Amino acid sequence: MKNLIVQKYGGTSVGSIEKIKKIAKDIVNIKNSGKRIVVVLSAMGDTTDILINKAKSINQNPSKRELDMLLSTGEQVSISLMAMALESLNESVISLTGFQCKILANEKLRITKIDSARIKKELNNNKIVIVAGFQGVTENNDITTLGRGGSDTTAVALANALNAEKCEIYTDVDGVYTSDPRKVSDAKLLDKISYDEMLELASLGAKVLHPRSVELARNYNIPLVVKPSHKKGNGTKIMEVNQVEKVVVRGISLDENTAKITVLEVPDKPGIAFKLFKALAKSNIQIDMIIQNINKDSVNDISFTIKRDYLEKSINLCKKIAKGLGAKDVIYDDTVAKLSVVGTGLAGNSEVASTFFEGLYEQDINIEMISTSEIKISCIIDRKKGVDALQHLHNRFELAGY
Amino acid sequence: MKNLIVQKYGGTSVGSIEKIKKIAKDIVNIKNSGKRIVVVLSAMGDTTDILINKAKSINQNPSKRELDMLLSTGEQVSISLMAMALESLNESVISLTGFQCKILANEKLRITKIDSARIKKELNNNKIVIVAGFQGVTENNDITTLGRGGSDTTAVALANALNAEKCEIYTDVDGVYTSDPRKVSDAKLLDKISYDEMLELASLGAKVLHPRSVELARNYNIPLVVKPSHKKGNGTKIMEVNQVEKVVVRGISLDENTAKITVLEVPDKPGIAFKLFKALAKSNIQIDMIIQNINKDSVNDISFTIKRDYLEKSINLCKKIAKGLGAKDVIYDDTVAKLSVVGTGLAGNSEVASTFFEGLYEQDINIEMISTSEIKISCIIDRKKGVDALQHLHNRFELAGY
Repeated sequence: MKNLIVQKYGGTSVGSIEKIKKIAKDIVNIKNSGKRIVVVLSAMGDTTDILINKAKSINQNPSKRELDMLLSTGEQVSISLMAMALESLNESVISLTGFQCKILANEKLRITKIDSARIKKELNNNKIVIVAGFQGVTENNDITTLGRGGSDTTAVALANALNAEKCEIYTDVDGVYTSDPRKVSDAKLLDKISYDEMLELASLGAKVLHPRSVELARNYNIPLVVKPSHKKGNGTKIMEVNQVEKVVVRGISLDENTAKITVLEVPDKPGIAFKLFKALAKSNIQIDMIIQNINKDSVNDISFTIKRDYLEKSINLCKKIAKGLGAKDVIYDDTVAKLSVVGTGLAGNSEVASTFFEGLYEQDINIEMISTSEIKISCIIDRKKGVDALQHLHNRFELAGY
Repeated sequence: MKNLIVQKYGGTSVGSIEKIKKIAKDIVNIKNSGKRIVVVLSAMGDTTDILINKAKSINQNPSKRELDMLLSTGEQVSISLMAMALESLNESVISLTGFQCKILANEKLRITKIDSARIKKELNNNKIVIVAGFQGVTENNDITTLGRGGSDTTAVALANALNAEKCEIYTDVDGVYTSDPRKVSDAKLLDKISYDEMLELASLGAKVLHPRSVELARNYNIPLVVKPSHKKGNGTKIMEVNQVEKVVVRGISLDENTAKITVLEVPDKPGIAFKLFKALAKSNIQIDMIIQNINKDSVNDISFTIKRDYLEKSINLCKKIAKGLGAKDVIYDDTVAKLSVVGTGLAGNSEVASTFFEGLYEQDINIEMISTSEIKISCIIDRKKGVDALQHLHNRFELAGY
């Protein structure tokens, strides 16, 4: 659709009545510049957390279906209030829930289809369309939510379905930085970054954008912009790699939400790792890095990292499986962090790895695990030393631009 | 459907996490007695008022569509929390919104159709079904609400669509009384009351049941029970007139939410009243009692009563119309109340009217307007004297049973 922009505002951006009124004015300004607008909203402020706490006070383990039924009210409140704010500015506007846009999502929390007919009809009636983020419906008309950060995905999926000219993600930060500016004082705001670089940074804990939304934008080549919602600023454009200035290292990140589990003395038989990781995957526990040490007497130690949130669940599961596999024991380390450098120029540049390891050596930091990809090198290190290492490597790779 | 009970719990009954947990246990007890259950819930406590205030802080006059979008979240929160409470008691349960049950409602806030297939499927899967009251969808899939008290109507409409054996309305009062127990200390709880009597009392301001729900129950002959939600008690059964013990006067009520408007010196031409009341009806202002006095010189004074909530709106409208009709002026009196006696035995019993008027005379109360129906006599009197008159007539008609 020509001249169409899809915008997404996060929970902090619409966290109060005043903020909603202010964003409404911004939307009108953009509309008056001759654009059609679809706005995707998250729930206001910490609404989702409040609702989750309410649920837990009734049932520690509510079913996903009923929790989704509850949580989806958060976005429904924001979209209706935003529509009312725009009505008070004499704009023609309509709010739509996930079921009204027929945003079909499967059990894996992924959007499988969007029936854009209703939205197109409303846009053609010259209306601003406000869509509830984070939610969809199943084929059976049950409400489902897309998981944390799902509103980003809603926005990108809508931009694709409606063939929008771009998708703008408004947030409470200025854009994407070379590193976390709360930890690295001279971190530099990036003008542009490639989809793949952003994807690695997002996966690595840079909380600006949800990885799935970046993946979706990359797959459909949708121009994405991350912008600050309540101040001026051009933010960061996320685009194809050939549109981005080539540098060796784009950014560096520290993921402190990681933990290491080691299954000790697993018999060295085929299919062992498969059985272990299949069971974890079945419980929706994502494995990040894996190493396997050949020990003595044909037994191996298998170490892997997971998000720290899932540590308890993972250990319990591993202990059960380890018994069946004939392993000796399961141990864990939740005092680790993952430090990563990301950059498209990194592929085939052997100096990056050596600078990385040298930098850690200079700080007297031991590397517990290493993993590499085309555009990323990650190391598991002691969490206590993480922030210092981050700053030191940010200097070493001259990311502040001096 | 055999052995099916539809229950409705109002906002006060599910006003807190603790109350929801308690009601969940009550539901399980009834299920264990061999019943299938559909539960209709209102929004928790004063949620609806809080949401309305939130809306007004953004837009004094939000569109009905967006306000409905906002308000319908209230019931969605209660049904999901109740489902979670029942899950924690190991019950198989599912919550359903208005759109999931396809409760079709028109612009006049009336339910026109319910597609009960989904509910029946879930009941046949041995699930307790929790349905959001107060809400439906239009043919266009827009969310609409049924107006205050709409959850009662949802319950009765579902009882009809599912062919339930009865519909139980749980509330924070013990049932239906001969008069308002907060105003008449010796008001007596009624075991039974006919649909028509209940309808008159409901319309007269006894806030136990929404009139539309009683009307619907009468039209489809659905046994209705009003019961207290958080204590023991059989409540009041509402049924066909031939199943109820015949008495002259069943109850007496005082409606303090009324006001009188008089259009002065309207030219005595055909169609004048029609034009006036049509304009009010168009603005959804319901007229209650009407009198017209023939004056002098072929001009009439037309007096009528409305709900006091609509006074300002009505006066503004009347002044506009009065001008067009050539009337002299519009005056109003918002210090009145409506006192009514209701009873099936009243039809054709001339003593009731004379006792009523005599009772008011004994209290030195002036009657400003009178209206009668088969089972009701209403008088407009000075509001200040309303409660005393109510108690006095309750004695005169010996409703306390002594």
